[in-house]
Amino acid sequence: MSIQSGPLLKTINSPADLRHLSASQLEQLAVELRDYILDVVSQNGGHLGASLGVIELTIALHYVYNTPSDRIVWDVGHQAYPHKILTGRREQFPTNRKKDGLSGFPKRSESEYDTFGVGHSSTSISAGIGMAQASYLQRSGKKVIAVIGDGALTGGMAFEGLNNGGFLQNDLLVVLNDNRMGIDPNTGALNEYLTKVTTSQTFNKLRDEIWQKLGKLNHLGEHLRTFAAKLEDGVKAVLTPGMLFESFGFKYYGPIDGHDLPKLIETLQDMKQIKGPKFLHILTVKGKGYAPAEDDQLKFHGPTPFEKSSGTFPKKAPAPISYTDAFGKAVVELAKQDPSIVGITAAMPSGTGLKYLAAEMPDRFFDVGIAEQHAVTFAAGLACENMTPVTAIYSTFLQRGYDQVVHDVCLQKLPVVLCMDRGGLVGSDGPTHHGVFDIAYLRTLPNIVIMAPGNEQELRDMLYTATRYKKGPVAMRYPRGNGSGIELRPGFTELEIGKGEILKPGRDVAFLALGNMVENATGAAARLEQLGYSAEIVNMRFVKPLDEALLRDIFKRFSKLVTLEDHQAQGGFGSAVGEFALREQYKGDIHIIGIPDQFIEHGTPAECHQMAEIDPESIVKRTLQLLEQPVTL
Amino acid sequence: MSIQSGPLLKTINSPADLRHLSASQLEQLAVELRDYILDVVSQNGGHLGASLGVIELTIALHYVYNTPSDRIVWDVGHQAYPHKILTGRREQFPTNRKKDGLSGFPKRSESEYDTFGVGHSSTSISAGIGMAQASYLQRSGKKVIAVIGDGALTGGMAFEGLNNGGFLQNDLLVVLNDNRMGIDPNTGALNEYLTKVTTSQTFNKLRDEIWQKLGKLNHLGEHLRTFAAKLEDGVKAVLTPGMLFESFGFKYYGPIDGHDLPKLIETLQDMKQIKGPKFLHILTVKGKGYAPAEDDQLKFHGPTPFEKSSGTFPKKAPAPISYTDAFGKAVVELAKQDPSIVGITAAMPSGTGLKYLAAEMPDRFFDVGIAEQHAVTFAAGLACENMTPVTAIYSTFLQRGYDQVVHDVCLQKLPVVLCMDRGGLVGSDGPTHHGVFDIAYLRTLPNIVIMAPGNEQELRDMLYTATRYKKGPVAMRYPRGNGSGIELRPGFTELEIGKGEILKPGRDVAFLALGNMVENATGAAARLEQLGYSAEIVNMRFVKPLDEALLRDIFKRFSKLVTLEDHQAQGGFGSAVGEFALREQYKGDIHIIGIPDQFIEHGTPAECHQMAEIDPESIVKRTLQLLEQPVTL
Repeated sequence: MSIQSGPLLKTINSPADLRHLSASQLEQLAVELRDYILDVVSQNGGHLGASLGVIELTIALHYVYNTPSDRIVWDVGHQAYPHKILTGRREQFPTNRKKDGLSGFPKRSESEYDTFGVGHSSTSISAGIGMAQASYLQRSGKKVIAVIGDGALTGGMAFEGLNNGGFLQNDLLVVLNDNRMGIDPNTGALNEYLTKVTTSQTFNKLRDEIWQKLGKLNHLGEHLRTFAAKLEDGVKAVLTPGMLFESFGFKYYGPIDGHDLPKLIETLQDMKQIKGPKFLHILTVKGKGYAPAEDDQLKFHGPTPFEKSSGTFPKKAPAPISYTDAFGKAVVELAKQDPSIVGITAAMPSGTGLKYLAAEMPDRFFDVGIAEQHAVTFAAGLACENMTPVTAIYSTFLQRGYDQVVHDVCLQKLPVVLCMDRGGLVGSDGPTHHGVFDIAYLRTLPNIVIMAPGNEQELRDMLYTATRYKKGPVAMRYPRGNGSGIELRPGFTELEIGKGEILKPGRDVAFLALGNMVENATGAAARLEQLGYSAEIVNMRFVKPLDEALLRDIFKRFSKLVTLEDHQAQGGFGSAVGEFALREQYKGDIHIIGIPDQFIEHGTPAECHQMAEIDPESIVKRTLQLLEQPVTL
Repeated sequence: MSIQSGPLLKTINSPADLRHLSASQLEQLAVELRDYILDVVSQNGGHLGASLGVIELTIALHYVYNTPSDRIVWDVGHQAYPHKILTGRREQFPTNRKKDGLSGFPKRSESEYDTFGVGHSSTSISAGIGMAQASYLQRSGKKVIAVIGDGALTGGMAFEGLNNGGFLQNDLLVVLNDNRMGIDPNTGALNEYLTKVTTSQTFNKLRDEIWQKLGKLNHLGEHLRTFAAKLEDGVKAVLTPGMLFESFGFKYYGPIDGHDLPKLIETLQDMKQIKGPKFLHILTVKGKGYAPAEDDQLKFHGPTPFEKSSGTFPKKAPAPISYTDAFGKAVVELAKQDPSIVGITAAMPSGTGLKYLAAEMPDRFFDVGIAEQHAVTFAAGLACENMTPVTAIYSTFLQRGYDQVVHDVCLQKLPVVLCMDRGGLVGSDGPTHHGVFDIAYLRTLPNIVIMAPGNEQELRDMLYTATRYKKGPVAMRYPRGNGSGIELRPGFTELEIGKGEILKPGRDVAFLALGNMVENATGAAARLEQLGYSAEIVNMRFVKPLDEALLRDIFKRFSKLVTLEDHQAQGGFGSAVGEFALREQYKGDIHIIGIPDQFIEHGTPAECHQMAEIDPESIVKRTLQLLEQPVTL
C-alpha cells in the first residue's frame, strides 16, 4: 500500500518551497508532516517519538535559515525524519531504514542537507564549532545550528564542545531540545538542574519578583538606586535559568515552548541577528501529537509496526529469548547470589536488559547517562573496592570508553565485567551502530579476557564465569536479536577460561567459529555435507586467551581452516588465529571470514550478513573455493 | 651523591606520623618536602611544578583524612611526588621514573596509598564516585577525595562524573586545584569562567555588596523585609562563584588559598563533616616556592636536570631535531602554502610542536583543552567545509577520541590528518603513556590511511602527502625523541600512498620495518652481516594500505621474514602482514617482532626497547633463532 502525504506537504520539494508559506500554512504543514511520519512509521517501524517532538523546530529552522548553505547539525539524528521529508526525500521516506533505502540517520552521502553524519550522541556541538570556525575563516557568512537533546548533553564531549565554543566565540546556535527523555528517561544532576530551571521558584518566580521589586526600589534615595541598578545587572547576569550555559560563555535564551511554531520562528529570527555562541532552550514533548506515543515514550521511541488508530502492536509470534533479555535476567539471578555484583549502564536500561536489575535491586543499578567514559572508570573505581561491576554497553558505544578500558581497567588488571551487547552487524540502524571493531581494539590490550557465547545458555555461563574471574577484566560480546531458542538450564556452570569446544568432528575443513557465527557455521556445514564435504565445527568461545591446545590439535588434523566472525576481518579473531599459526609455523591454508574492509550499510540483519558475505550461503561458497584448491603445501 | 631529606621529613614514614605534628611542625614539613623534591628533581628531572603546587594540600589531606583507609585519588598524577614521599616512599624517591624505581605517577601495585593508577587526565571524579558508592554499599564509612586540576576539568569525562556524582549524592569531596596551567597555559571558556569566579566584581564584590546592603533594607517595611529575606536566600543560592558546580548538585566552597596550610586543614576538617558531594576550590601556584619555576611554569612543568641554585639548565649537547619539532615546523611551512590548513591540539601546543603555528598564525591554531573527543570531531566539522585540519594528539591520548575517529571521521571519509606523536614506547612516563595500541585500533577501520615515517625527512614528506590526500583520513604515527639527524631537504615530496621502499637488498631474511624500527632493523642487519647473514631492509612506510606488490615480491624471494614495529605484536603491523600472507597462501616463516602481550614498565627509551625485546640486539637474537631453524616448508 503506497502511503500518501498531505496536499500541502506534497508541494514541498525543498526548504525553499516552505519559505513562501503563510503562518497558517506552516501550521498545516506541521499537521501533515506529523501525519505522514505516523503513517509511514506505523507501517515500517522506526524512530517515532523523537521525530514527532521536533516537527515544529524542523519547520522553523528551515524557514528561518538558508539551508543547505546554512548548516543544521542534528545530534544523534533519529529525530531527523521531518528534516529528511522536507529536504527532498518525501517520496523515498517509506524506504527508511530498509536496504538501499534512506538511512535512519542523517548521512552526508544521502543529501547536501545532511551536513554531518550522526548516530552516536553528543557530537553536534563539536562538529558545529568546526563548521562555524570554517565559516569564519572562509568569510562565507554561513550560519551553523546544532540541535542537541538533553540526554545527549550528558555526554562529556558536549561539554568539551561548549568549553571550546564559548572560547572561540564563533557564530554558533545550539538548540537544546529538552524533553527529559533519551530512549529511557534521563537521569543525572543535569536532568535535575534542567527541571529546576524550567519549573522551580528559585529561578523563574524569584527572577520575576526581583525585577518587579527592583522597580519599586527606585523611589529610594540616590545611593540605593545606584545599587539597585547594579544589583539588577548582577541578577540579570546570574539569575538566568541558563547560568550553567552562561558559565561556558554562551548567551542563553529560553526556555520556550518548542511546539509553538510562531514563537519558534520569531525567536530564531532574533537569534540569527545575534553574534557569537548562543544557546536556545526549547521544551518539547517526545511523541508530541500522538497520544499513545506521548503516554508511553519508551515504547514509541523506536517502535516496530503498530496500528496507528489505536497505538496497539500486533501480537508477536513466540520467539526465542533475546540475548539482551537472557543477559538482563541472568544479572538479576547472579546479583541475588553475590552481593558484590552491581550493574552499570550508560542510558540504556532497556536496551541492555539491565532494567530487570533496576526493578529488582534499584540500589545496585546505576544509569550514569550517555557517559560511557565515566561508566567504565566508575566501574573501575568500584572494582578497586572489591565490587563486581557488570558494565553493559553496546559494542559500538564502548568505543567512547576505549581509553578508560585501556588506562583504567586493563593496565590496572581490575576485574570489571564489560558486556558488549550488539556485537556484530546490527541491521537497520546501520554503520553508525554496527559493533564490528571491538575484538580488534580490545585484543591488542594486555590482561583482558575476551569471549563470545555461541548461544544464550552459554551467555549465562560466560557471565557467571566473568563475575567469578578476579585476575583482571573480562569482555563478553554478543549479538543483537534473538538467541537460538535453546532451553535454558537453571543455575550456572563455570567455564574454563580460554577453552573452546568441538561441536562436530569433521574431515575436510575446520570451521573455527566465534559467537553467533557458530550458528552460521552450522548452517554452512550442513549444506557442505550435502555436497560431500565434512566440516568440523569448533565453538572457539574465547578470542583471548586463544585455546592454543585446541588449535594445535586442529593444525595437526587439518590443512584447511576457516575462521568465522561477525566482526571486521582485519585485526579480529581470525587475525589472532593467524598470528598464532605463524608462531606455530603452521603451513596449511587459513581463510579468514569476517566483514570486508568497508562499512556495511543498513538492512535487515540477514541482509547485512549477506552484504558482508558472512551468511551461511556465502560461507559455503567461500569454503568451496578453498576446498577445491589443491593444498598449497 | 645521595640526597638527604630534612630532619623532620626523615621521621615521617607514613601519614600516621604526620598526624601528631603541631601546626608549626607541619609548616616546617612543607618547607622540607619542597626542598627534598627540588633536590631530587633538579638532579633527576621529573614533574616539578605541579608537585610544588600541592605540597600544602597533600599534607593537609593526609593530616585530616585517615589514609589509606580513606581514599585520595590524584587526577593525572604528576603532582603526586609529595604524596609518595609522605606515604613511605621517601627513600625510594630518588629512583623516581627510573627503571625498576618508583613510577612517576600513582600506581596501585606500588603502594596501598595509591588508590587509583593515573597518567591520563580527568579520571579522578569517576573513579572516586565508584569508590564512594562502594563505601556506601559496604557501609565502610571510608571517605573519598578526588583532586583534579583546572586543566583536567576541561576533559568531558570530568563533567560526566559531576553529572553522575551530583545525582548519586554520595560522600565525595572534589578538590579543584586551580592554577590555570596544564602543561601549557589553559584556554577555554571554563578557564575564563574560573578567572571570573576568582577575580571579578560580578561575583565576589557584588555578592559582598548585596549582602551588606540587604542588611540595610531591614529598616524598610514588613513587605520589603520579607522580600529582602527571600532575595537573600536566592542570591546566596545563586550568586555563589561556584554556581557552575552547584548546577551539578555539588556544594561549592571556596575559592581559598591552597598554600595556607592552617586554613586548608580547617576547611578540610569542616568538609569532612558535610554529607554528599562537595566541591572545594583552592587556588595554587604551579612551581610554588621555587622562583624559577613560578616564573617559567612551562619550562619547569617537567624539566630535565637543572642547577637548583640558579634554575639554569646545562647546555645541551647538539642533537638531531626531534620528530616533534620537525613536525611543528613543517606544519608552519605547509600552512603558508595552503590556506586550508589549520592546526588542532588538545592542550599540548608545546608537546606536539604546534606552538610554532600558534606563534606564526594564531588564527589558524586551536588549542581545545584536554578534550580529544572534541578535537577529533571539531576537525571533522572543519573537514566538511573543505578545511585541512592537522590534528596532533599523542598516540596514547587519541584513545580518548577513538569513537570520534570511527564514527565522525572514517565512516564519513573526511580528510582529517591525525598526527600521533609519541607513537611507540615513550620511556620514563611509562605504561600510561606508551602509544602502542594505535595501529591495532586504527587498522581495523575502513577508509583510513596509516603511515609511519622512517626518519624526520620522511615525516615532512608524509605530512605533505597527508594534507594533499582528500579521499579520506590519514593517520601518521611517529615516535617520541630525536630524529636520525638526516639533513632536511627544503620543500616537500609527495609520496605514493601505500608504497614502501627497499633500503638495502639482502639474501637470507627480509626485515619489514615500520617507522622508527627502520633504524633498529638497520642496526640489527649490520650486526647480522658480521655474523655472515644478509638481511634485506624494507621501510614499509604504510600499514594501510599495505604495499601488496612489494610484499608479493618479498614473498617470492624470501622464505624467512621478520616484521618489526614499536607497537604491540598483537593486532599490529605484523599481524596485518600475516593476514595478507594468509590470503596469498605464503608458506615461508614470518616472525612478528613487536611488544609482547604485557604493559611495559618505565625506563629510558632504550631500556623500554630492551624490556620489549625490540632493540637491535634482541632483534639479532630473535632473527638468528629463525635463521638457524631449518626452513619448515
